[in-house]
Amino acid sequence: MSVVAQLRDALSDIVDTTPEALEAARADASGHRSDGPPLAVVHARTVADVQATMRIATATKTPVVVRGAGTGLAGGANAGAGEIVLSTARMTRILEILPDDLLAVVEPGILNADLNAALASHGVWWAPDPASRAISTVGGNIATGAGGLLCAKYGVVRDAVLGVDLVLADGRLLRLGHRTVKGVTGLDLTSLVIGSEGTLGVIVGATLKLRRTVEGEICTLTASFPSVREAAVASACVTASGVQPAIMELMDGESLAAVHALLDLPAPAPGTAQLTIQTDGASAAADADRIAEVLRRAGGDVDVTHDLDEGERLLRIRRSMHAAMASLGTTLIEDVSVPRSALPAMFDEIARIEQAYGIRIPTVAHAGDGNLHPNFIVDGPEVPERIWEAAGELFRGALRLGGTLTGEHGVGTLKSRWLADELGDDQWELQRQIVRAFDPLGILNPGKVFARA
Amino acid sequence: MSVVAQLRDALSDIVDTTPEALEAARADASGHRSDGPPLAVVHARTVADVQATMRIATATKTPVVVRGAGTGLAGGANAGAGEIVLSTARMTRILEILPDDLLAVVEPGILNADLNAALASHGVWWAPDPASRAISTVGGNIATGAGGLLCAKYGVVRDAVLGVDLVLADGRLLRLGHRTVKGVTGLDLTSLVIGSEGTLGVIVGATLKLRRTVEGEICTLTASFPSVREAAVASACVTASGVQPAIMELMDGESLAAVHALLDLPAPAPGTAQLTIQTDGASAAADADRIAEVLRRAGGDVDVTHDLDEGERLLRIRRSMHAAMASLGTTLIEDVSVPRSALPAMFDEIARIEQAYGIRIPTVAHAGDGNLHPNFIVDGPEVPERIWEAAGELFRGALRLGGTLTGEHGVGTLKSRWLADELGDDQWELQRQIVRAFDPLGILNPGKVFARA
Ligand SMILES: Cc1cc2nc3c(=O)[nH]c(=O)nc-3n(C[C@H](O)[C@H](O)[C@H](O)COP(=O)(O)OP(=O)(O)OC[C@H]3O[C@@H](n4cnc5c(N)ncnc54)[C@H](O)[C@@H]3O)c2cc1C
Ligand SMILES: Cc1cc2nc3c(=O)[nH]c(=O)nc-3n(C[C@H](O)[C@H](O)[C@H](O)COP(=O)(O)OP(=O)(O)OC[C@H]3O[C@@H](n4cnc5c(N)ncnc54)[C@H](O)[C@@H]3O)c2cc1C
Repeated sequence: MSVVAQLRDALSDIVDTTPEALEAARADASGHRSDGPPLAVVHARTVADVQATMRIATATKTPVVVRGAGTGLAGGANAGAGEIVLSTARMTRILEILPDDLLAVVEPGILNADLNAALASHGVWWAPDPASRAISTVGGNIATGAGGLLCAKYGVVRDAVLGVDLVLADGRLLRLGHRTVKGVTGLDLTSLVIGSEGTLGVIVGATLKLRRTVEGEICTLTASFPSVREAAVASACVTASGVQPAIMELMDGESLAAVHALLDLPAPAPGTAQLTIQTDGASAAADADRIAEVLRRAGGDVDVTHDLDEGERLLRIRRSMHAAMASLGTTLIEDVSVPRSALPAMFDEIARIEQAYGIRIPTVAHAGDGNLHPNFIVDGPEVPERIWEAAGELFRGALRLGGTLTGEHGVGTLKSRWLADELGDDQWELQRQIVRAFDPLGILNPGKVFARA
Repeated sequence: MSVVAQLRDALSDIVDTTPEALEAARADASGHRSDGPPLAVVHARTVADVQATMRIATATKTPVVVRGAGTGLAGGANAGAGEIVLSTARMTRILEILPDDLLAVVEPGILNADLNAALASHGVWWAPDPASRAISTVGGNIATGAGGLLCAKYGVVRDAVLGVDLVLADGRLLRLGHRTVKGVTGLDLTSLVIGSEGTLGVIVGATLKLRRTVEGEICTLTASFPSVREAAVASACVTASGVQPAIMELMDGESLAAVHALLDLPAPAPGTAQLTIQTDGASAAADADRIAEVLRRAGGDVDVTHDLDEGERLLRIRRSMHAAMASLGTTLIEDVSVPRSALPAMFDEIARIEQAYGIRIPTVAHAGDGNLHPNFIVDGPEVPERIWEAAGELFRGALRLGGTLTGEHGVGTLKSRWLADELGDDQWELQRQIVRAFDPLGILNPGKVFARA
C-alpha cells in the first residue's frame, strides 16, 4: 500500500491531498517554497492522530514536516516532494487554565492571540507576543522559540513554557517538563524542544507559564533622529539608564519611509529614524518621563502620549513593516541579534554592506533586546546568490560583535548553511547526534536546520 | 603508567593525593559519603588543566567526578574508589562585567556571594540566591540548576545563564549559548547543561544574565498560624492575591521550634507555623500592606517591619534551618515541588506519612514557588531503608499532586532510584542516550542521576 493509502486507511478524512492544500504546504511566510508539492497534509485533531501518522511515517521511512500556521520566516514548515505534512493547526483546545498557579495547558494549534483572549478574563496572559500573534500557533511559537515586542521586559517563549508533550518520530508520547515553578529532575528536555523547529518531535501539548495582567496605564513615546546611528545610540542610552521599557522598537530611514508610503502618511525627512517606546505598570508615567529625558539628551525629537488609542496608532507604524516590505518585492527578512551595546556598531556594519553591494537594507530592530531585522528586497521569487553573499556578511558581522545568526525566527532552510559558523563543527556534530537520539531514522524535517550546503 | 602518574606527569603540583583531600572528596553536604577514597583530586586552575585531565581520563577510561564547593545536597559530587575528582573551585576569575549589556563572564569556581559582591559596585546582580550562596560556586549552581529564596520573583539559575563553556569527556571545548538577550540558533544546549549534575561535561566558563540592582526599601513580614496547614493556605492566598513578594518562606511547627531552640529564642506555642515574607522595589510598602491584610484575613498573627536589620534578623531564623536540623542528627533533606495551590495538600500528605511511619518530618518551604524541604532526621551515618520508604511515599505524593521529585537540589546519588518514576521509562532512556552523545564512554559521574537501583 502506498504511504498515502496507509494514511487514509488509518485516518480517513483528515488526510488531505487536494492540490490547494499541497500547494499551500510548500511555503511559509518567508517567501520561499519547496521544489514540489508534498504527498499529503494530515490535519491532526488528536494526539492519537499524530501518533498514527508518525507510526506510518516510521514504518515507511517517510519524511514528515510538522506545520502550525505556516507564518514562519525561515522556511522551516515548507514541505516538498515525498514528504508528509503533519498539521497541528486544528488541535486548538485549551485544556486547563489555573490562574492561581499561573499556568495553562493547551493544545499546540491554538493561535497565540486566541489563547490570550481566553486568558484575559482570568486576569492572566501568556507573555510571548510575536508580531504574528494573531496568525501564529502556540505550537509554532514554541517550535521556533519565538520572541516579540514585549520580550525585553516580559521574556521570550523559552521563559514561558514549563512542559511539553512530544510525540517522537516512532509515535511514542513523552511528557517533558513539569507543572511546578521549579524542577530539576533529569535533563531539561523542555528547553531542548523550544526552538527545535520540528526536528525532535511533534509538540502535541504544552504547559505554559502565565503572568498576571499588568495593571496601570501605558505610555507611548516616539523619538525621531536625523540618522539611524543616532537612534541606535539613544536606544543604548535608554537601556543603560536602567529604566525598563515594555517595548522599544527602532526603524531606520528606509523602513520608516516605506511604511509611511504604505499607510499614506506624510513622508519623513530623508534618513529620519525613529524609536517607538512603551512603558507600563505602576511606574509607567514616571518611566516615560525619565526615558523622554534620556532621548532628548541624545538629540531626539520626542513625543509622549498617555492615550492608549494614540499609542496603538503609533505602534501600528512599526507593525506595518512586514506589509510595507512585501509591497516592494520579495523580502528576505533577516534576524541577527547582538549585545545591546553593539547596536550602533551593527548599524555601521549594515551601512558598510549596503555600500559594498550597492543595495538598500531597510532595517527595524527590537532595540530593547538587540535583535535586528534587516530586510533584503529582491525582484522575482528567488533570492540571487549575490544577496545571499551580502546576508552572509551580515551574519559574520553579527558574530564578530558577539551576536547570533537568529534571535527569534530560527534556522529552517534559509540559514542552515551558516549554522556551523556559529556553533563550530564540534557542537554542530553533537547537536546532530542529539537529534538522532530523538529521531534515529532522520525523518523529522530532514534538510532543515542541520542540513549542510 | 598509572592514571595518577599520568596526571602528575601532565599537571604536576595540582594533583592532590593527600589523605585529607581524598577523604573530603568522598562527601558533599548531604551527609552521605562514597564507599572509599578516590584516586586523586585535580585542582584545575585553567581550561587547559581541565582538558588535560579529561584527555587522560578518556584515554584510560577513568571515571571523573566534577566538584565545585561540595555543598550539594544530593551526593552528586561524592567521589569513590577508582575515580578522579576534578575540582573547579580554584578557577575563580571574573573575566568580564558589562553592566550595559547586563552580562558577566566568569570562571566556574567563583563563589556566588563573591561574584555578587563584585557586581554590586556596578549596580547589577546575579539573581540566583541559594541559601548556600556564601559557600557554593557559580559552576555548582549551574550544574545543579540551583534555586533560592528570591526565585519566585527573580528567577532560578535556568533563567539567568546565557551561555556555558563546556569541556567534553574527551577534552574538547565547546562554547554553548550566546551573549545576546535572544538567540535561537540550533538546539538550546545551554539549558541542557543547567542541572545536568556533572554528567554532560565540565563547566569551565559561564556567560551570566544579570539584573539591575532593585531600588527602593525592603519590608519584612512575619505571620504566625496555629498550624502548618493554615500557614500553607495563607501563602496560597498571597500568591492568588497577585502581589508578588520577593521572598515567601514557610516553617512548620517542628522546624520553627528546632530553630528557636538552636538560637536560644523563646519557644513558640506548640504547632505554631510561620510565614516570613519580604517585599521590595518601588511598591514594597504598599505590597507589604496588601499582603498583611491577606494574611490577617487568613487568620495570621502579623508583624511588619520596614527596618532592614530587623528584617535580616527575622530571615536568619529561616536561614538557620539547616544548622538546626544538623544539630538533631543525620539529616536527609528532601526537595519536592508542587504547583503552588497544592501546598496545603502536600502538607496533608506529609502529616499522613508522619502518622503512618511514626516519625517527625520537620518541613520548610519556599512557599512562593511551591518547593518544600521535608527533613528526615536519623541516628548514625546511614539512612535506614524504612526512612527511604517514607521518602518514596513523599515523592509519589508530590508526583500525584502534579509535582516533581526535586525542585532545586538535583538527583545525584540519593534520588536516582526514583528518577524513572517521574520521567517514565521512555524519557529516562532518551535522556541517557543524550548523555551518551556527550560522553560515549560513560566516564562522567557514573552511577549518579541515571543509575538505576
Ligand atoms: C507578519 C509576521 C510577523 C512576525 N513577527 C514575529 C515576531 O515578532 N517574533 C517571532 O519570533 N516571529 C515572528 N514571525 C515569524 C513566525 O510567526 C513565528 O516563527 C511563529 O512562531 C511561527 O508559528 P507558526 O504556527 O506559523 O509555525 P510554522 O510556520 O507552521 O512552523 C514554524 C516551525 O515550527 C515547526 N512546528 C510548527 N508547529 C509544530 C509542532 N506542533 N510541533 C513541532 N514543530 C512544529 C515547523 O516544523 C517549523 O519548523 C512573524 C511572521 C510574520 C508573517
Ligand atoms: C546550608 C545549605 C543551604 C543550601 N541552600 C540551597 C538553596 O537554597 N537552593 C539550592 O538550590 N541549593 C541549596 N543548597 C545545595 C547546594 O548549595 C547547591 O546545590 C549548590 O548549587 C552546589 O554548588 P557547589 O559548588 O557546592 O557544587 P558541588 O556540591 O561541588 O556539586 C554539585 C553538583 O554539580 C556538579 N558540578 C559542580 N561543579 C561543576 C562544574 N564546574 N562542571 C560540571 N559539573 C559541576 C557536581 O558534579 C555535582 O553533581 C544548600 C546547601 C547547603 C549546605
